[in-house]
Amino acid sequence: MRLTAHTDYALRILLHAAMDRDHLLSIAQVAEAHEISRNHAMKVVNLLGNAGLLETVRGRGGGFRLGRPASEITLGEVVRLTEPNLQPADCDNCLLKGACGLTGLLRNAVGAFLAELDRSTLADAAAGTRLPLPLFSAT
Amino acid sequence: MRLTAHTDYALRILLHAAMDRDHLLSIAQVAEAHEISRNHAMKVVNLLGNAGLLETVRGRGGGFRLGRPASEITLGEVVRLTEPNLQPADCDNCLLKGACGLTGLLRNAVGAFLAELDRSTLADAAAGTRLPLPLFSAT
Repeated sequence: MRLTAHTDYALRILLHAAMDRDHLLSIAQVAEAHEISRNHAMKVVNLLGNAGLLETVRGRGGGFRLGRPASEITLGEVVRLTEPNLQPADCDNCLLKGACGLTGLLRNAVGAFLAELDRSTLADAAAGTRLPLPLFSAT
Repeated sequence: MRLTAHTDYALRILLHAAMDRDHLLSIAQVAEAHEISRNHAMKVVNLLGNAGLLETVRGRGGGFRLGRPASEITLGEVVRLTEPNLQPADCDNCLLKGACGLTGLLRNAVGAFLAELDRSTLADAAAGTRLPLPLFSAT
């Protein structure tokens, strides 16, 4: 069971932003450090920026920082924003669509997954994190 | 967020077996009805057979049936058996491996997902299912 790479990168990027609220972070540096394509990192930052989870500054010396306090951004909010599909099986293309008792039970389980993520914030995640290097300040 | 196709097919196959405990079901017919490759369906049936969730009968006129009462097989047991990886993000290949507060929070969320599935059995799933056709009896 996997979240998409999109969600994975969003969580990493937000975590870095939550760890260093005093500086603008650089997409290029975060992308390089995590071996993410710069294009993919930019898409994620744009999505998070449009949702207000990041504040972005364009141009030379630009970058991003957290758009709201880390204690007010739950992991559940992030995952709901970035996951294209929260249906854990391909029920839409199944012979049993609309007549299957598994669908609701799987939905309940995803609900429990999200409810647990709703109880955790980026501040909680940051509290348990040690950054290996102060890599990410945009200059 | 998606379970693997392997798990999806395992759940469908077990559901059919739970719906018709009186007949041997045919891998070929289940595979055809669900547009699964016969080879993939066979792998899933073998895995479920080795784990005792299905009883398999080889040869002409062979097939499979449920190996234990449907009320004693939880969805959690199935998912733990068939999912190759229950880590929702690629933490092993991350720069922050071992130093990241997200890992434990994501693990808790997967725990909540599985705990919910542990409360649901194949009998619960079967009770909410209507099979479109009595397709699956091996002859």
